Parts: sequence; structure tokens; C-alpha cells
Amino acid sequence: MDPFSFVAGQLRLVEQRLVDCTRSKEYEITEIASRLIKGGGKRIRPAITLLTFNAFDGEREEDVVDIATAMELIHAATLLHDDIIDGAEFRRGKESAYKRYGLTRTLVTGDFLFIKAFEFAGKFDETVVQWTADACTSLTEGEVLQGSFNRNCTVTVQDYIRIVERKTASLFQTGARLGAYVAGASSEQVEVAANFGLNLGIAFQMMDDVLDVVGRRDLLGKSTGMDLRDGNPSLPIVLSLLDGHQTVARVFQSQTPTKNDIQRALDAMGNGMLIERARSFSRKYAAEASREIDKLPVSPAREGLKALGRLLTDRDR
Amino acid sequence: MDPFSFVAGQLRLVEQRLVDCTRSKEYEITEIASRLIKGGGKRIRPAITLLTFNAFDGEREEDVVDIATAMELIHAATLLHDDIIDGAEFRRGKESAYKRYGLTRTLVTGDFLFIKAFEFAGKFDETVVQWTADACTSLTEGEVLQGSFNRNCTVTVQDYIRIVERKTASLFQTGARLGAYVAGASSEQVEVAANFGLNLGIAFQMMDDVLDVVGRRDLLGKSTGMDLRDGNPSLPIVLSLLDGHQTVARVFQSQTPTKNDIQRALDAMGNGMLIERARSFSRKYAAEASREIDKLPVSPAREGLKALGRLLTDRDR
Repeated sequence: MDPFSFVAGQLRLVEQRLVDCTRSKEYEITEIASRLIKGGGKRIRPAITLLTFNAFDGEREEDVVDIATAMELIHAATLLHDDIIDGAEFRRGKESAYKRYGLTRTLVTGDFLFIKAFEFAGKFDETVVQWTADACTSLTEGEVLQGSFNRNCTVTVQDYIRIVERKTASLFQTGARLGAYVAGASSEQVEVAANFGLNLGIAFQMMDDVLDVVGRRDLLGKSTGMDLRDGNPSLPIVLSLLDGHQTVARVFQSQTPTKNDIQRALDAMGNGMLIERARSFSRKYAAEASREIDKLPVSPAREGLKALGRLLTDRDR
Repeated sequence: MDPFSFVAGQLRLVEQRLVDCTRSKEYEITEIASRLIKGGGKRIRPAITLLTFNAFDGEREEDVVDIATAMELIHAATLLHDDIIDGAEFRRGKESAYKRYGLTRTLVTGDFLFIKAFEFAGKFDETVVQWTADACTSLTEGEVLQGSFNRNCTVTVQDYIRIVERKTASLFQTGARLGAYVAGASSEQVEVAANFGLNLGIAFQMMDDVLDVVGRRDLLGKSTGMDLRDGNPSLPIVLSLLDGHQTVARVFQSQTPTKNDIQRALDAMGNGMLIERARSFSRKYAAEASREIDKLPVSPAREGLKALGRLLTDRDR
């Protein structure tokens, strides 16, 4: 079962809203926003929201499409701001907005996309806005927490999980929570959905980290080794540090690692069981997410959520 | 009459909310946000919202305090992002957050403050969130529009007004509009308030631009000549360009003007009637704002708005 096909009709409505809301009086904002939005992206966050909504037999489709759109807009906003922070040259296989349009326009377009997300959330009650804001707050806090472990060899797996919960999983969690909420699920069920999203988000990020070591550039649309270059503590890096791996530690700490340094560290991490251990971490969280899904009523959408979990934790891009 | 004293009690409640909402799980966000918030600022935007609310005999004080807090949070967020964009070293007489805490933490704290603003706006109906979002959208569009005239000698007074309407006056306008709205004013009265705010915002920015030429560093808390250094088309610069003033044009266009260059251009602008013309532009918009206020019911708060208008357009800091 392809979970994206299952919600294809609703995803098309999300796509339309994304295109509509990125129109600005300033063509440069429109250009940066629509280039990012139309330039791909898997629409994982909208799919989670839509599938969760359908798993609870939600009826007000217009509502959930608005919420799913808001989730993708927040994700897009953070991509633009992250590219500034990381000085990234590429995004989704193309020149990054930061590289192409410079700091001012990229920063401001990120703000613009955040604002549009709140326009959609603002159509609903205070709870929806509050949860949306909470997710965004977590994203910002995760970014700062990650920054405090930048090129910092004292980072532990626990620190790593705290970063990932905030920086990635909070939006998965909120997307699932809101999908259930606008479907009219009970507060207990809403928290089951939220917990599913949280665990799936962690599993997803762990796989992302694995692919930054062993992924193929042509499939990823970017080089591997970005976490080493940027000094971001990915799961393979954290596990290497705990193993006392000197090559990885040296490159991770270096302010200006060369391409050769990075390749040597990638080779070191790719050898042995380290990547397998990282994958099994991801599978553990995916299994926890799956157990949460089992608590939902049996339905095709529930199977869609399970399929999405498998897709996100057994992927090569 | 001191307009700030008139709403001192409500401003204290705003201050308390500002302090409370800038607490983050990440102490660095708390530190940057509270350093900016506690480090001064005139609280002009909250004062406009509060005075407008009182001018319409608003009763739900808690509501307007939330709105006024949101306005100041949005302003604070843009200050952090503007400092990144301008590479500013100083803000309110102290080292800027950007200089002190670097790009990542400053950018993310700006996002954090935007998000908090929407938490406050999200307590109200969709109209409040939509207007708040519209103001923020204008701010981002104003920033990009200003960027397109950076060091660009083709800028006209009309371009300048369009920039200022979006980048500064939109938040004054929305603050006044929302103050009237939550006070329960009629939609006609709400638009009178909005128009007052818009004109006052333009007048305010024009005076800000004048002070960047003739202000005293000890009163401003920053050097003069920042608009020339950053290549931002301020009103005195735009008027100089229209006068065909070669010194100003050369320095304005220069990517790397020296301190001497800037001083020469400031001296040139300070001579003659140029600053007086800029001031009279400001007075013209202030008079328009005042005429809008005259349409409000007679009340002490209405006098407070008038006094605020005088204060903002006849100031030395």
C-alpha cells in the first residue's frame, strides 16, 4: 500500500493551498517560496496529518487540508532558516535559496512562510494555534540545543534524542495530534496519535542521519557527510564518539574539515556495525510508533500510517 | 499630558506578559529575548493599541493587554532579524544580539518571538489572527522592497512611502485597528483607527530617518549615518538624491563607505533646508493622523493619542 496514493486527493488540495498562499506582493518572496515548495519535498508531514485524520474517520476535509498545509509551511520555513544557519549551498538537489538569493530575502521568506502557517492555524480554535505554536517553539529550541552540541564531543545519545524530539519529531507529533483533533477524536486518542507522530519523527531523523553517511548523492539530491561538515551531532557521529573513534572525533571537532577528512570519517563510520546499530535505533522507534498505531481503530488509513512508517524507516533517499 | 503615563497600569501588565512569555527551555533564547525586551524600547506600539482601546471605552482589559503584547513581540522579532540583515553591531545603546550571540541564536530567537506573538493573537477570533498575519506579511514585504532599493539611486519619494508603509507603519496601523476592534468599535471606527495608525507610523519613521542624520549618539543609543552605511534609502537620502546631490549619491551607492565618507554626506544633508523639508513631510503625516483622531469620541484617551503623535514627531531620540 502506498500511503501517499491513499491521500492523493487531499494532498492535491494541500498542494493548491501551498501554491496560492506563497503569492506575495514582492515577486522575490513568491519566487523563493514557490521555488522551494514546487521544487519537491516528500510531503511527509501533510501525509501524516491527513492519514491520522482519515484513521479517525474525520469528515471536515477542508479543515484537515488547512492544517496539513500549515505543517508543510512550517517545515518549509525552517528549511530556509536552516540553510542560512548551515550556510547550505544545496537543497533538494538544487542551489539553495540562501546561495541564490542571499541572506535577507531567504530569512524574510522564511518568516513569511511561518506567518502563512499561522494564518491557516488561526482559522481554528485556540488549542490548534497553541499546539502549532508549541511545535514551532520546539523547533527553535531544538535548533539552539543542537547548536550547543555543535562540534562538541561530549554529546550523548540522550542529548541527541532531546535534540531530535524538538528539532524534527515535534512537527510530526503535532501533525498527527492535530489530524486526530480536527477529526473529532477523544483526547485520549489524540494523545495516542501524538505519541505515534513523536516516535515516527525520531525514527525518521535517525534514518536521515544514517543516509548522510551511506546514502547515494544522486538519490539524496545532496552530498553525504553534511553533518560532519556542519559539526551537527548525527546519530552515527554520536555512536562513533561513544565508541571512542578518534578519526570521527577529530573531524567532527574540526572547524574546517577538508573533503578528505570527511571522506575518511565517513569510511570509518561505514565500516563495521555502527550503521547497523543506528538503523536498529531507528527501527526501535518505528516499532514504538507502530504499536501506537495498533491502538487506533482498524481502517485502511491505519494501514496507510503503518505503510508510511515502513517507508520512512526503510528508504534510500 | 504624558500618553505613556495615561496607560501606565496596562503597560505594566504588557511588561509582565513580555517577561513571562520570553521564558524558553533553552536559556540562550530566554537570555537573548529578555535582554532585548528588558533593554528598553519605548513601547510605542503597545501604547498605541492601549490608547486606541481606551479611546473607544474598551472594557476587556485582559484582551487588549494580550494584543498590545503581541504587537511588541512582533516588533522585537523584526529587530533581531533586521540586525542580522544589517549586520548591526549596536541596538538600544548596547552590543546587538547578532554581534554578541551570533547568527543562529539571534535568528531562532526572532522566530521564537514571532511565534509567541501568534500565541497571543490565537486567543482571539480569526479576524485578529488574520490582521496580525497581514501586518507581519507587510513587514517582510517591506524588508524585501527596501532591499530592492538598497544603494539604488533610482528610488523616489513614492517608493520610499511604499517601503515605510509596509516596514514600519503596518504594525502601527494594525495595533490601532486591533485596539479599536477588541474595544468593540464599529467597523467604520476601526478603519478610522487603522488610518490614524498608518499615518502616525509614516510620520514616526520619517522622524527616525531625520534623527539618523541630525540626532545625538548619546540620546539615540547608536551612531548616526547608519542608513548611509547600510545603503537604506531614508527620507533625507531620497530627498538629497532628487536634489541631485552628488556627495550623498556617491556615498549611498558605495558598498564600503568610510567613516569620513559618511560624515561628509551627513554634513551635506544637515546643511540647507533638506532636513527641514524632511521634518515637514513628517509633520504632514502627523497632521493627517491627528485629523483621524479628531473623528474619535472626545475622551482623555483621545488626547493621549494626540499627545503621542506630538511626542513621536517632535523628539530627539
